[in-house]
Amino acid sequence: MRDLDALSIRTRGGRLWLLDQRRLPQEERWIEASDPRDCAAAIQSLAVRGAPAIGVAAALSLACFAASGAGIEALNNAADLLRAARPTAVNLMAAVDRVRSVIPQGADAVIAAAEALFDEDVALCEAMAERGAALIQDGEGLITHCNTGGLATAGVGTALGAIGRAWAGGKKIHVYVDETRPLLQGGRLTAWELARLGVPHTLITDSMAPLILRDGAAQRALVGADRIAQNGDFANKVGTYGLAVAARWHGAAFHVVAPWSTVDLGCPDGGAIPIERRTPDEVRGVIGAFGSVRWAPAEANVYNPAFDVTPARLVTSLVLDRAVLDADALAAGGLSALG
Amino acid sequence: MRDLDALSIRTRGGRLWLLDQRRLPQEERWIEASDPRDCAAAIQSLAVRGAPAIGVAAALSLACFAASGAGIEALNNAADLLRAARPTAVNLMAAVDRVRSVIPQGADAVIAAAEALFDEDVALCEAMAERGAALIQDGEGLITHCNTGGLATAGVGTALGAIGRAWAGGKKIHVYVDETRPLLQGGRLTAWELARLGVPHTLITDSMAPLILRDGAAQRALVGADRIAQNGDFANKVGTYGLAVAARWHGAAFHVVAPWSTVDLGCPDGGAIPIERRTPDEVRGVIGAFGSVRWAPAEANVYNPAFDVTPARLVTSLVLDRAVLDADALAAGGLSALG
Repeated sequence: MRDLDALSIRTRGGRLWLLDQRRLPQEERWIEASDPRDCAAAIQSLAVRGAPAIGVAAALSLACFAASGAGIEALNNAADLLRAARPTAVNLMAAVDRVRSVIPQGADAVIAAAEALFDEDVALCEAMAERGAALIQDGEGLITHCNTGGLATAGVGTALGAIGRAWAGGKKIHVYVDETRPLLQGGRLTAWELARLGVPHTLITDSMAPLILRDGAAQRALVGADRIAQNGDFANKVGTYGLAVAARWHGAAFHVVAPWSTVDLGCPDGGAIPIERRTPDEVRGVIGAFGSVRWAPAEANVYNPAFDVTPARLVTSLVLDRAVLDADALAAGGLSALG
Repeated sequence: MRDLDALSIRTRGGRLWLLDQRRLPQEERWIEASDPRDCAAAIQSLAVRGAPAIGVAAALSLACFAASGAGIEALNNAADLLRAARPTAVNLMAAVDRVRSVIPQGADAVIAAAEALFDEDVALCEAMAERGAALIQDGEGLITHCNTGGLATAGVGTALGAIGRAWAGGKKIHVYVDETRPLLQGGRLTAWELARLGVPHTLITDSMAPLILRDGAAQRALVGADRIAQNGDFANKVGTYGLAVAARWHGAAFHVVAPWSTVDLGCPDGGAIPIERRTPDEVRGVIGAFGSVRWAPAEANVYNPAFDVTPARLVTSLVLDRAVLDADALAAGGLSALG
């Protein structure tokens, strides 16, 4: 196996290491996930997160497992386990299925398939960054939700990759970062990544985003996606739908940036996307390596979907690695035509 | 002085006690605020909060101070201190000014004025609860933001008072409670009050409110106000504006419930309402008696307005103690006509 390097994924001598994103930004600790069971646990516990990153991590753990001599049945069982680790992100299923299809061909084929997925994700990010950055105008304020940067992919990211590319290209931008309750991927991870990249930014609570749009501090929102249905409806981190409504209300552009592997042509519309429900304790307080506290009554009834679905009609454009589609193109079946 | 009893305000033998709302729901601890300096500190630190409650508490601390023999100059200085404790809530200024105007008449007049404010707030809450409850239909889902109940007033509350009255009147309702980042008054205080009242409720992050409205789980939103301008624009806890936009987008009713003392006819519109900015640390993490943790980078740039302004055109109706005004009535100068 080659030694690979991404912001949150590394392979060294046939072993897979993941940057434990639960510990960021307080601590940069790498955990081993060479064993697919450890990788599945890391996906479930959000030690690794981001739709593209979990697909690549799952593929590489199968490669490590194959390199260590695992047989066909063990590899297939491991693929089942990984595939089921999170239900909403379709990249995970697509990546695992691609590696699984070559298991009968032996360990070298499994390793090559996983490495190809890593390399492709880097290239897809580059293509999305170029297309997305071209939409961002000099002097604009931007809003983003959750984390869609280098941590969430093997490359520079999806929405945050486009933002970073715009900045690197000399556009003077300012990024408003939704903290992204309940798991605070914006406050923890996006703020950390933007500081690392030197991009000017301001952290806000999710409830302040409509103010930022109303006051004209931001003219454009960019988000990622965990699954995109055939008609362009998409699932992303909970809170994305409200941001899309607020963007439309204020006449701001709203872009979804995602690789083609996020598109599920077998899913007719957003209503068919399964939405993961998570533990009430995430809303009763905060839970993290930074510390855990509970402020709500212990028995408080809670609704905690991890994702929400935004209809295609609220999307100004969907930025894929291979194309940019506007709402009209999505409504006209543009995704099926690309597939 | 009479002994007075509210959910968060008590007088006993000429001394004022406040329920420390920072410690709820984990602990019910009362702190003394008979000295106006202690009361001002309690207002600034949010030990006592809620626009009506801070006005009543400030008035009663002036009464205690007068009862303890304070002179005219000391009382006037104390009134200045209290008046400046929070800049957005106009009830505080109105209450202090009313008590201050009788300082020259002596301690008994000061005490009588403060007690009258308490009694009036109870009566205002009853009137708002009746008018507000009449708008709520049997079987509805409701959304509320921040805390507007017994903790926020001397009586049953404003928006939450109306919700509680609807439930007590036999209407089967379900309340979705915005947790209300950054200070979590919904997750801490409203969830606690609704459990106490036995009203069915579900705690959500602020970012989930648009989903609740889209899915038809709630048809109506009710919020309080910290200051209402002459044209009906109003300031309330940050996040209210986004909720109003989401309610309008989904065709849900949006009601503001507040006593007449919240109306500032000297303020022409929302743009003239001063908005308090608070410390960045409230957004970099959570700070409370329940514990304090920081998850964002320590140096993260933050925007943290305590309130936002919602335009009158997004208000289905403003429920005052003395009248209910719809958006057309507000636009036609209805508030000035009532004044």
